[in-house]
Amino acid sequence: MDNGDIPENANEHCPGPQSESAGKSDACEGCPNQQICATAPKGPDPDLVAIAERMATVKHKILVLSGKGGVGKSTFSAQLAFALAAMDFQVGLLDIDICGPSIPKMLGLEGQEIHQSNLGWSPVYVESNLGVMSIGFMLPNPDDAVIWRGPRKNGLIKQFLKDVYWGELDFLVVDAPPGTSDEHISIVQCLDATGVDGAIIVTTPQQVSLIDVRKEVSFCKKVGVKVLGVVENMSGLSQPLTDFKFTKLMDNGEQKDVTEWILGYMREKAPEMLNLIACSEVFDSSGGGALKMCNEMGVPLLGRVPLDPRLCKAAEEGRSCFADKDCVGSAPALKKIIEKLIEANGLSMAASNGV
Amino acid sequence: MDNGDIPENANEHCPGPQSESAGKSDACEGCPNQQICATAPKGPDPDLVAIAERMATVKHKILVLSGKGGVGKSTFSAQLAFALAAMDFQVGLLDIDICGPSIPKMLGLEGQEIHQSNLGWSPVYVESNLGVMSIGFMLPNPDDAVIWRGPRKNGLIKQFLKDVYWGELDFLVVDAPPGTSDEHISIVQCLDATGVDGAIIVTTPQQVSLIDVRKEVSFCKKVGVKVLGVVENMSGLSQPLTDFKFTKLMDNGEQKDVTEWILGYMREKAPEMLNLIACSEVFDSSGGGALKMCNEMGVPLLGRVPLDPRLCKAAEEGRSCFADKDCVGSAPALKKIIEKLIEANGLSMAASNGV
Repeated sequence: MDNGDIPENANEHCPGPQSESAGKSDACEGCPNQQICATAPKGPDPDLVAIAERMATVKHKILVLSGKGGVGKSTFSAQLAFALAAMDFQVGLLDIDICGPSIPKMLGLEGQEIHQSNLGWSPVYVESNLGVMSIGFMLPNPDDAVIWRGPRKNGLIKQFLKDVYWGELDFLVVDAPPGTSDEHISIVQCLDATGVDGAIIVTTPQQVSLIDVRKEVSFCKKVGVKVLGVVENMSGLSQPLTDFKFTKLMDNGEQKDVTEWILGYMREKAPEMLNLIACSEVFDSSGGGALKMCNEMGVPLLGRVPLDPRLCKAAEEGRSCFADKDCVGSAPALKKIIEKLIEANGLSMAASNGV
Repeated sequence: MDNGDIPENANEHCPGPQSESAGKSDACEGCPNQQICATAPKGPDPDLVAIAERMATVKHKILVLSGKGGVGKSTFSAQLAFALAAMDFQVGLLDIDICGPSIPKMLGLEGQEIHQSNLGWSPVYVESNLGVMSIGFMLPNPDDAVIWRGPRKNGLIKQFLKDVYWGELDFLVVDAPPGTSDEHISIVQCLDATGVDGAIIVTTPQQVSLIDVRKEVSFCKKVGVKVLGVVENMSGLSQPLTDFKFTKLMDNGEQKDVTEWILGYMREKAPEMLNLIACSEVFDSSGGGALKMCNEMGVPLLGRVPLDPRLCKAAEEGRSCFADKDCVGSAPALKKIIEKLIEANGLSMAASNGV
């Protein structure tokens, strides 16, 4: 799948340290790793067997990926988990962003701890059908930095897959960090034999984000993970005009807040403006946005979610946006996307209660 | 500095594979790595000597970090490099985001290639005093994913530091990926002996971003890198009202674009509204934003930059926002931040021409 395991100081035609000929092929002659490679244990990783056993009770596994960070991937993962749970599915949400876990905060679970039983590590439950696991639950101090190189991160991801007792799940949603490196290679390698339904890729409309998404799509193709679809997030800001503040540039260069005055002025002179929705294309999408990229790369666009301050607030406060009638900018869009995802992939058949 | 190098399967009190007692201490008894550790070469890395030589011609080294991705770190790095170059400094910009390099795009250098000379790898030059290096210049196809685990990423970072011929530089700005993992440990270890001025940490006002920034500050403290300051980016959207689109929710649930009509209506009924600036707090900052975090962590806040669609566009098009008179929302804020940074750290003395 990848040659990521080849040490940086290896010889040119390194067969890979996991290969049967590791340390023994002609190319290994003189390599500083030759002895290690020749004697290290090979063959199937016993952890993979344990992972397959754990995953036997999980019907569907969905990865949520992004090329760039900060595009709303964890917000989407959290809202996807909330939505599936609200549909009465049994849902697990696994956060494998080891250095920047956002999931505990976004599910309203800050300060919670993981408990251990004879069945394994217990997820933290938001509701009886929505369990969550993250390294965020393991840090004694939330400000602590997790300064880990790849192998330790990979070790923890393996433990999450091997040691967490999820029980019967309809969906395991895996929230990955941005990029295409250790965590991604590990999760795909670990879940490969257990069957992954596919990946949802989250992006924003800007070229600079789409460049990285293309890499993420290439990654999925390379490792054989189906792209279930792309979600374009922060597709412009959409907000009631009366939710804005208004300022005026004064002659001395200062900006003066005139919000109160303008609201009165509008009521009196221009009442038609009071129920307008103001939209701004915050991030430049003149390059065609996600739709063009999807067409070019041959992957489906699941939909667009506008930048909605109320969704940002719901995420900050660990709430589902679907229960919030004020999330008019984003909740309907998210709902459509999740329905489309379930329908297009025949996932609705998965509910343990047969719904 | 960190124990990130300890293999995941090491014994409990592992002295670290680089320690003098590696493979020989009591704690190593029975460890699967004992033999490797006991025989592997130790002592100072010869690459560090080569890096120190290269860096001898670089006066100031500034890292740009963020806890979370997508907060505008690369945009800030790019604009910082543009600004320093405009002040007649000799500037190098090094992108060590291996899996998601944004810098080539943001400097308008897409499709450029690196050339090699007998002095080393030549940076790609935007102007004669602004050179750029990124893995983005090395990919035969920009959609290619760089599916590398940590050791290969670290290897390339070392090569960037060791093999790039920057010549005499006043500033080397290093744009790091988000997080606190391989790339960060590597860059700090590699530059440790050469003297790093410090790190600028970029964040957005949301709690979920600030949580990760706290980790980044902890990282800097742990590895002994000075925090030069924090930049709060996307501090609300600030845009002329007439730049918005306006829609109206119709009885059938559809949103109708009424922009043209409303602009006419405003001109006629409410002309006072035409020169307003509309501001929206896109990302919730009710938790106190970056200022509160800075006070708590004892690090300086350099300033706030509003979310400005015109800055986003400048970044997309690889332009400096300072040359764009329309970037009224962000350019003055960025300029103030850079002036403050230079002044507070006595960096202005650094100009090779003595300015």
